[in-house]
Amino acid sequence: MPVDMDKIVSLCKRRGFVFQSSEIYGGLGSCWDYGPMGVELKRNVKDAWWKAIVQERNDVVGIDTSIMMHPRVWEASGHVDSFTDPLVECKACHLRWRATEVSDQRCPKCAGELTEPRMFNLMFKTLMGPVEEEASTIYLRPETAQGIFVNFENVVSTSRKKLPLGIAQIGKSFRNEITPGNFVFRTREFEHMELEYFVKQGTDEQWLDYWVKERFDWYIELGIKKENLRLRQHGKNELAHYAKDCYDVEYLFPMGWSELEGIANRGDYDLTQHAKHSGRDLSYYDAESGERYVPYVIEPSAGVDRSFLAFLIDAYDEEEIGGETRTVLHLHPSLAPVTVAVLPLSRNERLTPLAKEVHKQLCQSFMTYYDDSQSIGRRYRRQDETGTPFCVTIDFQSLEDNQVTIRERDSLAQIRVPIKGLEEILRAKLGGEAFDTSPLWATRQP
Amino acid sequence: MPVDMDKIVSLCKRRGFVFQSSEIYGGLGSCWDYGPMGVELKRNVKDAWWKAIVQERNDVVGIDTSIMMHPRVWEASGHVDSFTDPLVECKACHLRWRATEVSDQRCPKCAGELTEPRMFNLMFKTLMGPVEEEASTIYLRPETAQGIFVNFENVVSTSRKKLPLGIAQIGKSFRNEITPGNFVFRTREFEHMELEYFVKQGTDEQWLDYWVKERFDWYIELGIKKENLRLRQHGKNELAHYAKDCYDVEYLFPMGWSELEGIANRGDYDLTQHAKHSGRDLSYYDAESGERYVPYVIEPSAGVDRSFLAFLIDAYDEEEIGGETRTVLHLHPSLAPVTVAVLPLSRNERLTPLAKEVHKQLCQSFMTYYDDSQSIGRRYRRQDETGTPFCVTIDFQSLEDNQVTIRERDSLAQIRVPIKGLEEILRAKLGGEAFDTSPLWATRQP
Repeated sequence: MPVDMDKIVSLCKRRGFVFQSSEIYGGLGSCWDYGPMGVELKRNVKDAWWKAIVQERNDVVGIDTSIMMHPRVWEASGHVDSFTDPLVECKACHLRWRATEVSDQRCPKCAGELTEPRMFNLMFKTLMGPVEEEASTIYLRPETAQGIFVNFENVVSTSRKKLPLGIAQIGKSFRNEITPGNFVFRTREFEHMELEYFVKQGTDEQWLDYWVKERFDWYIELGIKKENLRLRQHGKNELAHYAKDCYDVEYLFPMGWSELEGIANRGDYDLTQHAKHSGRDLSYYDAESGERYVPYVIEPSAGVDRSFLAFLIDAYDEEEIGGETRTVLHLHPSLAPVTVAVLPLSRNERLTPLAKEVHKQLCQSFMTYYDDSQSIGRRYRRQDETGTPFCVTIDFQSLEDNQVTIRERDSLAQIRVPIKGLEEILRAKLGGEAFDTSPLWATRQP
Repeated sequence: MPVDMDKIVSLCKRRGFVFQSSEIYGGLGSCWDYGPMGVELKRNVKDAWWKAIVQERNDVVGIDTSIMMHPRVWEASGHVDSFTDPLVECKACHLRWRATEVSDQRCPKCAGELTEPRMFNLMFKTLMGPVEEEASTIYLRPETAQGIFVNFENVVSTSRKKLPLGIAQIGKSFRNEITPGNFVFRTREFEHMELEYFVKQGTDEQWLDYWVKERFDWYIELGIKKENLRLRQHGKNELAHYAKDCYDVEYLFPMGWSELEGIANRGDYDLTQHAKHSGRDLSYYDAESGERYVPYVIEPSAGVDRSFLAFLIDAYDEEEIGGETRTVLHLHPSLAPVTVAVLPLSRNERLTPLAKEVHKQLCQSFMTYYDDSQSIGRRYRRQDETGTPFCVTIDFQSLEDNQVTIRERDSLAQIRVPIKGLEEILRAKLGGEAFDTSPLWATRQP
């Protein structure tokens, strides 16, 4: 049973995950700002992707291309012609509607008469440079993928890698959506994590299978419950114009099963199009076999913001503990905005110096939060609500024995450990080590 | 004597640091793409900033606001009125020029007659949403700072922090510059690292001094040579309309001393303006003293791309070694795109499995590069050229003694170490430990 979206939106506002953009001016439709907690969760999602896709592999390199690209890129890619939605306009109030959304011939707002459907391009236009001519009309990219395709030749010739080779990118994309909504799920400004994996034709189907499994497993490894995740193959009539085959990884959001990520077999569509439009040879020469060919491309394309939302929703829980309800985010420790909170038992001139020393030590290695206000119980609850996996409590005994208590978010176990070994223990825990309450560490259970 | 910019541009292209955007279509003016090496260096620069500014401090939190903001934000901030350059237009060819750049009354291109100077706003405009009305004209942000100011209230109320409090952000900004240039130094699309540090009036001057020193030292700690860095206080007539005082951190680029970062005392200008335009009370209540006031703001504002460029230029060297010239980037190990290269002595069926095993082990913790083609000497040179601080070489003796050779980029020292302790030793080296060639590790000097 998924949690209400309202509860998530409210938590996000209350605890600094997500604010409405330009809120003091009444907000800007479908734009959102990530607050102090949200920015860390989002950074961790992106870093986890980069680690799995780029750092830990020898067959993928990264790239970071500009949002503004040459307009001919979007002619070649097909976005100028086909990245469109049919819209109708009200002849009276001039409001526009997605044609598929209005069932009758009258405007849903003022009951005015509607025009025939016209195609509306989803790309944002702007003018670049001081000369206001047609030539300087450019688009904000609606996807990061094309930045990869137009650099294929550059990357292959400078990286000294052979196929199969992946090029990965994380960055902002923009789509002038007609009906954005569901919080950060569908927005006009959003962030993409895209991998274009170039392979030889004939191996493309097995690489598609490989990447579908890899990407599905990634979400599971980072804590998404298996029952909330499913794969869905696109029907033939549903495939984009460039796709030979496509699978969506879907998550059970509060509004129902919705796409987290698409893994498509784009064939040789993009490189062929760009070769045709640019006049450049974008084929690949395989020195071992002596063959030259235009590679096929497998594309796992994920949304940062909707992954962020899925991780948040999936981690959300309300638990009964001792007759009280605690709201807790069971986020994977590597995704949690704060890894460790340092909490002196009370704001006290004897405890504060030691607590600050512990904080200073830990913040070299971990995202750390220092809090010395209100009761320790309330501070634990607050950390639970933002998903902090570990709290370190400094009490008066710490002044004598140089030990502190680690409290674990999920199990609520508390163990007593020497300050000196704190960093090492936390590192082991982050690596997935179970909480060891044996006498060696658990010298006291307060 | 600074290196020629041409050499840097050439290295960047050749080794995959920076490519021209949309190059296969003839390029897009002043837009650049970061290649496999560039994206890692840029990520490391941003991560180093985030670690120093957010992670290691208890008085700063992060945020990530949208590029598209409510248009009234830019009225309040003054950008609609004053973020302008005076331009003249040629009546014949309609090319526009910065008025200060044309000394006579004739177009530098076609010698046509020029118009009187008119003000040209540097913000990029676009239309948001399906309704094409004036109300939906929005701007791409020309700085990330305003996203922080309009969220000041949200952050203070949800983060439970007291003043002095900093809010930090890294993100893209856009300025429709008339004369971009000097490679990635001045571009139309660029990345900002901005901190807005909110303090009580009266303490602002000492906080300005504090942040000027902090920021200057940051570049030094990350390896910029002191003689290539200077501070310059703005003259009274040079100050922006919002600034009470401002210092630039300047770097000796090939084109001369140029701004890397500005550290400004913005006073209470921004919060006051937004309070006035939004009708919201943006003052801060100090619970301890019972006072309510509008905070002053100290703003260290740095460019990611120009920091990237400065680190690259400063690290560049050509050295004579054994009668040959090696090109080397003496990048700080925490900034280097690749931390460790794994190089089997030759491509050999006995060496490859062990080398791949070492690579697999190291890439869990470090950005790692595997290369087994061409001679070991050439591979070392290639790693030098992209600034890889450590090369790990696997030779035939490794198969017997489970030891490998670490070769250090700067000292060219080689030490023999057990594979088992490799990760720990590299971690210590990254932490700044000197290269220990004592017999304990240096069991063999090949």
